[in-house]
Amino acid sequence: MDYRFSDTIDSFKSSAVREILKLTQGKSIISLAGGLPNEQYFPIDAVREAFLRVFEEGKQVLQYGLTEGYTPLRQSIAKHMERKNIHVGVDDMLITTGSQQAIDLLTRVYIDPGDIILVERPTYLAAIQIFQSHKARIVSVDGDADGMNLIDLEQKIKQYNPKMIYVVPTFSNPAGKAWSLERRQGTLDICKRNNVLILEDDPYGELRFGGGEALPSIFSLDKHPHGSAVLYTSTFSKIVAPALRTGWAIGDPDVIRQMTRAKQAADLHSSTMDQQALHQLFEHFDLYSHIDLVRSEYETRMRQMADLLNQQNWPGLHWNEPKGGMFIWIELAEEIDTEKLMKLAVEEGVAFVPGVSFFADEPKRNAMRLNFTHTDYEQMKEGFARLDRAIQKMLQTV
Amino acid sequence: MDYRFSDTIDSFKSSAVREILKLTQGKSIISLAGGLPNEQYFPIDAVREAFLRVFEEGKQVLQYGLTEGYTPLRQSIAKHMERKNIHVGVDDMLITTGSQQAIDLLTRVYIDPGDIILVERPTYLAAIQIFQSHKARIVSVDGDADGMNLIDLEQKIKQYNPKMIYVVPTFSNPAGKAWSLERRQGTLDICKRNNVLILEDDPYGELRFGGGEALPSIFSLDKHPHGSAVLYTSTFSKIVAPALRTGWAIGDPDVIRQMTRAKQAADLHSSTMDQQALHQLFEHFDLYSHIDLVRSEYETRMRQMADLLNQQNWPGLHWNEPKGGMFIWIELAEEIDTEKLMKLAVEEGVAFVPGVSFFADEPKRNAMRLNFTHTDYEQMKEGFARLDRAIQKMLQTV
Repeated sequence: MDYRFSDTIDSFKSSAVREILKLTQGKSIISLAGGLPNEQYFPIDAVREAFLRVFEEGKQVLQYGLTEGYTPLRQSIAKHMERKNIHVGVDDMLITTGSQQAIDLLTRVYIDPGDIILVERPTYLAAIQIFQSHKARIVSVDGDADGMNLIDLEQKIKQYNPKMIYVVPTFSNPAGKAWSLERRQGTLDICKRNNVLILEDDPYGELRFGGGEALPSIFSLDKHPHGSAVLYTSTFSKIVAPALRTGWAIGDPDVIRQMTRAKQAADLHSSTMDQQALHQLFEHFDLYSHIDLVRSEYETRMRQMADLLNQQNWPGLHWNEPKGGMFIWIELAEEIDTEKLMKLAVEEGVAFVPGVSFFADEPKRNAMRLNFTHTDYEQMKEGFARLDRAIQKMLQTV
Repeated sequence: MDYRFSDTIDSFKSSAVREILKLTQGKSIISLAGGLPNEQYFPIDAVREAFLRVFEEGKQVLQYGLTEGYTPLRQSIAKHMERKNIHVGVDDMLITTGSQQAIDLLTRVYIDPGDIILVERPTYLAAIQIFQSHKARIVSVDGDADGMNLIDLEQKIKQYNPKMIYVVPTFSNPAGKAWSLERRQGTLDICKRNNVLILEDDPYGELRFGGGEALPSIFSLDKHPHGSAVLYTSTFSKIVAPALRTGWAIGDPDVIRQMTRAKQAADLHSSTMDQQALHQLFEHFDLYSHIDLVRSEYETRMRQMADLLNQQNWPGLHWNEPKGGMFIWIELAEEIDTEKLMKLAVEEGVAFVPGVSFFADEPKRNAMRLNFTHTDYEQMKEGFARLDRAIQKMLQTV
C-alpha cells in the first residue's frame, strides 16, 4: 500500500517539547523543559469526591451529552468568570478538550489557507503548530516586557491585513510577561478599528504572584460578548488538573456557534465524566483557596529559581522576573546556540526548551524556557549545576 | 466587529439528528430518532469502581498524558482485538475522543480539498459532515443487503480515482447491514489493487444478534497492520458508555503516527481519567458477559420493533431485519417524503430520522431510520401508534 497523505501533514511536526519529554522518559534527567503543573498540588481527594457525587446521580450520567458542553458546568464557569469581571451566559461558551482544542476550532472556522495571523515574539509553540496545520501565514509582532509594541502592531496590520491576532497577555508562555493595561486597551482598540479578531489565550491568569490586583483580560475590556472583537479561552489544567482535559472558549454567540459545529464534526463532545466532575468540584470544593495555595507554592519555586539564576555568571545572561505563570525566559550571549547546548545539557542530565521553538519567524537562537513548577528546590539546584557544566563545556568550544 | 469566517463554515451544518434531539428535549415526544444506547445497561457500578481504582494510584493520575493514549489501555485494547483475530501492538494504535475523532483525524491527514471519498448509500451522516468539512468530494457506491456492489465499486474507483473509501460493514448505521465475507474480501482486494485506503468504522460490531459466528473485519482479512490498506476504528460508547468518549484507531504505524501528530495539534490528548478507568474496567470487570447482556437485550427490543413493523400496512413498507446494531432502516412508498412526514410525526409526539440525512448524493426521500435500543416496548408501541397516525394524515394529503 502506497499511502497518499494530504499536503497538510508536513505541518504536523511533533512538538519539540514533547520529543524532549520522550527523550527524558525513564532517564534520571532533571527536566526544566515541560509545562507540567506540580502533582503535589493536585486536589485529588476533592476530585475523587466530585466523581463519586457524579455517580450518585444515576446511570444517565454515562449517556451522550451536548456538543456545547454540560450546561451546569457552563453555568459554573460563567459564575467563575464573574470574578474576573467577565459577564457571559451559557450560549456565549463552548466546553473544549483543553484550551488547545479551542485554538484549533477557532482556527478551523476562521482561517483559510494563506490567511495571516499575528503573534507575539516569542509565542506559545503549540499555537504555532495549530496555525501552520491550517496553512495560515504567521507573522510576529515586536514587543517588550509590557506587551506588544502597538506601533509595530498597527503597522503589521496595515501591511498584512491579518484576520486574527493570537496573544497570551497574562503570564505568557514562554516569556512570563504580564501586559500593561495600556497595551491591552491599545491592542483592543487597534484590532476593533481594523476588524481583526483577538484570540486571547489565558491558561495561567490565575497563577499571579505578588498578591497585587489582577489585570483585566482584553475580553473584559471589550465589555460584552455580543459582537466582541475577542475570543477568550482558558482551562482547568493549571488550576485543577490536566488529566481532566477541560477548557472553555467564550465569545460572540455566532463565533461560539460556528466553533460548536466544528466540534460536532471533530469529536461530538468532550468527556462528560470530567465535565460533570468539574461542576461538582465548583459546588463542593473551595477552588479559590486551592488556587491561592498553588499560586503561593509556585511563587516560592519561582523565587528559588530566581535566586539560582542570580548566582550564575553565564555570559550575557538576561531575564525578567515573571509576574505569574510557570516559566522563566532567559537569554544568553549571542554565540550560545541553545539548540546545540541542549545536547550537552541532556548529556549532563538536565533538559530545557530551546528558545527557537517559540518563534514563528526570525528566531532567537540564544534563549531558553525554564519551568519552575515541576521540580523541588534540591532538584532545581542540581539541575542548575548540570546546566552550568553544559554551558561551561559549550563556552570552551565557541 | 464584522467576523470574517473561513470558507469551510458552510460545510459545518448542524446534524439533523442533533437538531431533532433539541426539538424533542423536555417534550413528551417518543424519540426513535437518536442513536443512544440504553442507560439501563450502563455498568455504572463497575465504572465507578474503575474510577476509584484509578484514584488509588495517587496524584500522578491527574497529570498530562501521551498524545498516543494511556499505554496500559492500548495494551488492553490490543488484547481485546485479539478476540477478533486482529493482532496489533501499541504503536499501531491511537486513542481518540470517540471514533468520531478517528474519522476526523484520518481525514485531516489524508484528504486534500477536492479529493474523492467513496461511501455506502446510505451511510453514517456524521461521516458525511466530517468529509464535507474537509472539502472532500463524496461519491456513493451502490449496494444491497450483502454490502457494496463490487462492480460499481471498481467502476467508481476507475472513474473517480478516490483516495479513500469509508465503510461500516458490520451492522451499518443506518441500514443495519452485515456485509458478506465475499464482499469484505472483494472490497479489500479491489482497494489494495487500486491503492485506495479503506476506513473501516466498527462501532456496532459487538452488538451481534442470533448468536452466530462473527464475520471478520476487513482489517483482519488484511492480516498485518504494517502496510495495511485498512484503518480500523471502534469505540467504547456502545459496549460501555458514551460519556467516557473513548475510541481507538488501529492501522499502519505510519498512518497512526501522522494521525497522532494531527491529534497533538487538535487537543494534545483525550481525557486520561476516562482512559485509565477503562483500563481498570478491562482488568476487573467481565466486559464480555456485559456485552452478551447488552446484545441479548437489544435483540429483544429489535424483535419487538420487528413485530410492530409486521403489524403495519403502510404503503410500500419494506425493511430487512438487522443482524445487529441499533437501527432498523425502513422504506415507504415513493410518494411519502419522510422529511415532510417528520413534521407531522413531531406534532403527534414521535420522532425518527428522515432517510435523506444519510445520503451524500441522490437521496432516498421515502426512507427513515428507527432506533430500537432506547425505548421500552410500551413506548415503542405508543411511538408506532403515533407514527401510524402521522402517516395516515400524510396519505390524506398526497
